[in-house]
Amino acid sequence: MLTGGGDCPGLNAVLRAVVRSAEDSYGANVVGFRHGWRGVVESDSVELTTVATKGLLNAGGTVLGTSRYHPSDHDGAVDAILDTIARDRIGALLVVGGDGTLAAAQPLMARGVPIIGIPKTIDNDVRLTDRSVGFDTALLIATEAIDRVHTTAESHDRVMVVEVMGHRAGWLALCAGIAGGAHFILTPEDPFDIGEVAAALRHRHRRVSSSIVVVAEGAQATPGTLDFVPAESPMGQITAGAIGERVRSELTARTGFDTRLVVLGHVQRGGSPTPTDRLLATRFGVAAVEAVLEGKSGLMTALVDDQVCLVPLDEATAGIRPAPEDLRRLARMLTG
Amino acid sequence: MLTGGGDCPGLNAVLRAVVRSAEDSYGANVVGFRHGWRGVVESDSVELTTVATKGLLNAGGTVLGTSRYHPSDHDGAVDAILDTIARDRIGALLVVGGDGTLAAAQPLMARGVPIIGIPKTIDNDVRLTDRSVGFDTALLIATEAIDRVHTTAESHDRVMVVEVMGHRAGWLALCAGIAGGAHFILTPEDPFDIGEVAAALRHRHRRVSSSIVVVAEGAQATPGTLDFVPAESPMGQITAGAIGERVRSELTARTGFDTRLVVLGHVQRGGSPTPTDRLLATRFGVAAVEAVLEGKSGLMTALVDDQVCLVPLDEATAGIRPAPEDLRRLARMLTG
Amino acid sequence: MLTGGGDCPGLNAVLRAVVRSAEDSYGANVVGFRHGWRGVVESDSVELTTVATKGLLNAGGTVLGTSRYHPSDHDGAVDAILDTIARDRIGALLVVGGDGTLAAAQPLMARGVPIIGIPKTIDNDVRLTDRSVGFDTALLIATEAIDRVHTTAESHDRVMVVEVMGHRAGWLALCAGIAGGAHFILTPEDPFDIGEVAAALRHRHRRVSSSIVVVAEGAQATPGTLDFVPAESPMGQITAGAIGERVRSELTARTGFDTRLVVLGHVQRGGSPTPTDRLLATRFGVAAVEAVLEGKSGLMTALVDDQVCLVPLDEATAGIRPAPEDLRRLARMLTG
Amino acid sequence: MLTGGGDCPGLNAVLRAVVRSAEDSYGANVVGFRHGWRGVVESDSVELTTVATKGLLNAGGTVLGTSRYHPSDHDGAVDAILDTIARDRIGALLVVGGDGTLAAAQPLMARGVPIIGIPKTIDNDVRLTDRSVGFDTALLIATEAIDRVHTTAESHDRVMVVEVMGHRAGWLALCAGIAGGAHFILTPEDPFDIGEVAAALRHRHRRVSSSIVVVAEGAQATPGTLDFVPAESPMGQITAGAIGERVRSELTARTGFDTRLVVLGHVQRGGSPTPTDRLLATRFGVAAVEAVLEGKSGLMTALVDDQVCLVPLDEATAGIRPAPEDLRRLARMLTG
Repeated sequence: MLTGGGDCPGLNAVLRAVVRSAEDSYGANVVGFRHGWRGVVESDSVELTTVATKGLLNAGGTVLGTSRYHPSDHDGAVDAILDTIARDRIGALLVVGGDGTLAAAQPLMARGVPIIGIPKTIDNDVRLTDRSVGFDTALLIATEAIDRVHTTAESHDRVMVVEVMGHRAGWLALCAGIAGGAHFILTPEDPFDIGEVAAALRHRHRRVSSSIVVVAEGAQATPGTLDFVPAESPMGQITAGAIGERVRSELTARTGFDTRLVVLGHVQRGGSPTPTDRLLATRFGVAAVEAVLEGKSGLMTALVDDQVCLVPLDEATAGIRPAPEDLRRLARMLTG
Repeated sequence: MLTGGGDCPGLNAVLRAVVRSAEDSYGANVVGFRHGWRGVVESDSVELTTVATKGLLNAGGTVLGTSRYHPSDHDGAVDAILDTIARDRIGALLVVGGDGTLAAAQPLMARGVPIIGIPKTIDNDVRLTDRSVGFDTALLIATEAIDRVHTTAESHDRVMVVEVMGHRAGWLALCAGIAGGAHFILTPEDPFDIGEVAAALRHRHRRVSSSIVVVAEGAQATPGTLDFVPAESPMGQITAGAIGERVRSELTARTGFDTRLVVLGHVQRGGSPTPTDRLLATRFGVAAVEAVLEGKSGLMTALVDDQVCLVPLDEATAGIRPAPEDLRRLARMLTG
Repeated sequence: MLTGGGDCPGLNAVLRAVVRSAEDSYGANVVGFRHGWRGVVESDSVELTTVATKGLLNAGGTVLGTSRYHPSDHDGAVDAILDTIARDRIGALLVVGGDGTLAAAQPLMARGVPIIGIPKTIDNDVRLTDRSVGFDTALLIATEAIDRVHTTAESHDRVMVVEVMGHRAGWLALCAGIAGGAHFILTPEDPFDIGEVAAALRHRHRRVSSSIVVVAEGAQATPGTLDFVPAESPMGQITAGAIGERVRSELTARTGFDTRLVVLGHVQRGGSPTPTDRLLATRFGVAAVEAVLEGKSGLMTALVDDQVCLVPLDEATAGIRPAPEDLRRLARMLTG
Repeated sequence: MLTGGGDCPGLNAVLRAVVRSAEDSYGANVVGFRHGWRGVVESDSVELTTVATKGLLNAGGTVLGTSRYHPSDHDGAVDAILDTIARDRIGALLVVGGDGTLAAAQPLMARGVPIIGIPKTIDNDVRLTDRSVGFDTALLIATEAIDRVHTTAESHDRVMVVEVMGHRAGWLALCAGIAGGAHFILTPEDPFDIGEVAAALRHRHRRVSSSIVVVAEGAQATPGTLDFVPAESPMGQITAGAIGERVRSELTARTGFDTRLVVLGHVQRGGSPTPTDRLLATRFGVAAVEAVLEGKSGLMTALVDDQVCLVPLDEATAGIRPAPEDLRRLARMLTG
């Protein structure tokens, strides 16, 4: 197995569940590749045992390490992976990752490697599953931060802009924003007009004197309304704080209110997973092992209708899952 | 509206969502009856406004107060309720409660009172909905307690018995037990044989020296194996610590291990709700208001397939919802 | 080194600091005895290295294990300890414990063993030091629990009795009670008259309808006013919940109010230490190593005037430290 | 009374303690001026009663509001304050603030206004007191964030730079850094040579692959080693993230390691205070009221030797209190 992409809470809980169920229930051995796909290419692995995974249920991050390495970016990577799999007698690959890491499995399945995926991402934007591992914990962290920022906003009569993660989907901004009682929520799904936001803010401040604006790091402005193009890194990551600072400075200029920025950043990825994430990670880990042992491949564990099931990996990685209309409508009703 | 039954985190968030959406989105007025059904009988109410519900999103408990008062236990109560509703010109009743509180709505609907229910219970055992308000927070509190107890168990080579809530269903014991890495989980759904538990414990302690046993307060022994009948109060509540102490003393006697009991008790009901509970409470509150305004009645808000919908109130209260087989199987795989 | 007595948060942080400073700063080796004094008697030890203590700063409990074993209760124990020390070439013993564990050092010092003590106890009742390791974390846990119980008390119009630890001193009850906004605080230092408490409670409930009563597990009734003698175990421990239940039932009988009990129990001892406890543990650990390397003995690390210093171990263990009058006066001013 | 300067956890707890002890114990009335000194100048006040301060013990921020308004920056402000005091028959002013807010009291005392100060600042740099209100909570928040960042650093083999508050003193960076197991800590007290930090980092990464660097927002580089002058606002505040980003980019350039920045920012000021802060706030509030009622003036409440006492306000505001050598030495021993 391997863990790839950005780290998040619950990866170690997946690991533990995979090892426990494989070893204790089915007598199967588990090998962990280090640093995501790079470890498979470089044949860098460790044996994982029940004893070695003790204490991992509530430990953040991943003891296997992770990376944003994609085999398709490197010549010969796929062949190297096939070599490793043959040499180490790997029966099947269990891949824990977001849509990028999971998509990298496609060419290997085409070459006959059995693969089962497990979705993890604090953005919660993997398709065909209601929840991905890590989201619930990020939601708790982001909401607690918004709770804290409220008291500063109110004590100082300020507008506080809180930038949360969410590159292409606004799940975290919407859920944390609603749960944290934000007054404005800006997401990638619904492009915003900064002039309208500023006007609504001025209107609101006729009766109150503080506001919370939650901005997803991938929030989009209506074309032509805000001169802003987020700089993407080659890995597809965007610069933390960029859109937040742009929104903050525009709101200051357009309203005159004392407006401050908080960028939650990497804190959202770390620390002990919530029980909900531990449980999801455990359920996914066990289901993935059973799928492997039943000879299945090309599938991803998913939570659908509160049940764990298996969905086609290629469909799951054929795009991302935006936040649904009902959540966005709820946000519109309760903010502004 | 009214809140009835045992208090739990998220009731105030429901209240706030009901008032905000009724007042801000639809211009409707909300009146809150105090202390559950008793307040309707006694016409004890307060007007609820957006301003009055400020700060309630993350406040535990219910500012309306609650009680276990059931109209069917009191002569004339239903007529008194009808009087209140007529006199105060109540268009519809919005009832937040567990299956007991919700079931009390039946005779009123039969007399023509429009009623919409919202399920709340830390036991998560209301039928037809995947989640009830309060469960996620109780799960977080119980799991954190189990995390803490682990370090004591390991430092002292002890068996720690942790009694959690769950009168007729083991959701909390199962979810917190799995998320907290418990070694044994006893629930109402799967009667336990104390002799088998003791034997498994002795077997386990050949290789380790500490264990965590999670017991639901309503856990059942296999008939004939443990002389224990939990004392129920007239209100249907059972005595906190009773089954936990019985299990603790039996395990001590049968294994000789240093075995201690922790009863989490009322702490599981209190404090600020998790973001997941705040979001669920908010979604349910808004959906209930919209159902009322659309002239619906006899329905309960529910979470099904990660969507909020409306289900028949009479079916929802026709029994309780035990923990499903897949969760119980997962517990069996990872414990013992 | 060894850790003895009841476990508490911060023991592992002491361990880590001792090993790091001994090894990295002074090139000294550290051996850890398992299960308190019993490990020294039985020569049951492990080598402790910087690598082995990685991750222990924020881990609850003690990886060395602990016990309430006292050498003075066992014939030949002191000689066995001297044998171990000679055979393993132990230069000095570093003892982490409460007053019981630390007092056991006396006969060994009389036989020439250099000993430095480090105070830990969630009761905070070790003499000559303002704080002992573990207290700050227990205070956080107990206060959070009281915060939670408030919302239940208010939602149900109840009196909630919360029993916290504190066998012979009321530090935890007083500090958590004041910080948690309790309305009554019963401690070992100031014997209470249950009739007066009930009268004050009835008086208070003329204007409000809920109250929080915090009771230390070692709280004392004024002689003749409450027929209660707490059962002490041979190890000097008292039964959790005993005084709490006695107070609860008396208040119910004397006031007629719905009165419930929460016993925090072992949860107060577990989990990750607060930063304040980690810092104190680290400062004590480093100071103890330096004292040993300077050839000192018969001393205990202490926090006095916000500085770490060394105090005589025999004086520190010559009794316990009750909560001071100013704290008790503050409690009287803010409660009742 | 008034609360001035940056907001922090525990201000409301001070307020509550002042009102409770004044009203309940001494029958005195308390008036709260809004937005710090500005409220006194503008005669903008509210009456504070025990009922009005209910629920404030664990609420973050200050219901009075605060500002960085300094009377000395405004012509006629002192006369306006004297007018307000005469007109509203204010017997004495109780000022809660950091050194800036407290220093503003000087010219008023010279004009005969009795003033008692209460120190609050998350920087913990007010002189003559071991602790100021707000520090303990900020320490908890910052340490939890560092805990979280560890798992990301280790999962990705990264260097994480965490910027915490601390303009002129490094208390928070040192305490959170030590408690959070940071590997490098940069403070205002001990100017750093970025070349030496980079060299130590490269040295460390021969054996490990991740590190945590904690930087106080006011950390100073050794003159000539880093081209950086933090931009101060007219109010004396410095730009969040400035030094952190400078350190991050320099370390990236000099080591080639994947180095990321997390700026904790305003999150450190918000939310519910720790029990330690609630207790300190309560003790200070009661002591300030008693000092006022005893006719004292020109004094500040202080924590010295774990006791609350009164110290001269002019000496307390004659500079700031840097972190002491023993704490800085401890940091040097455990980092690098």
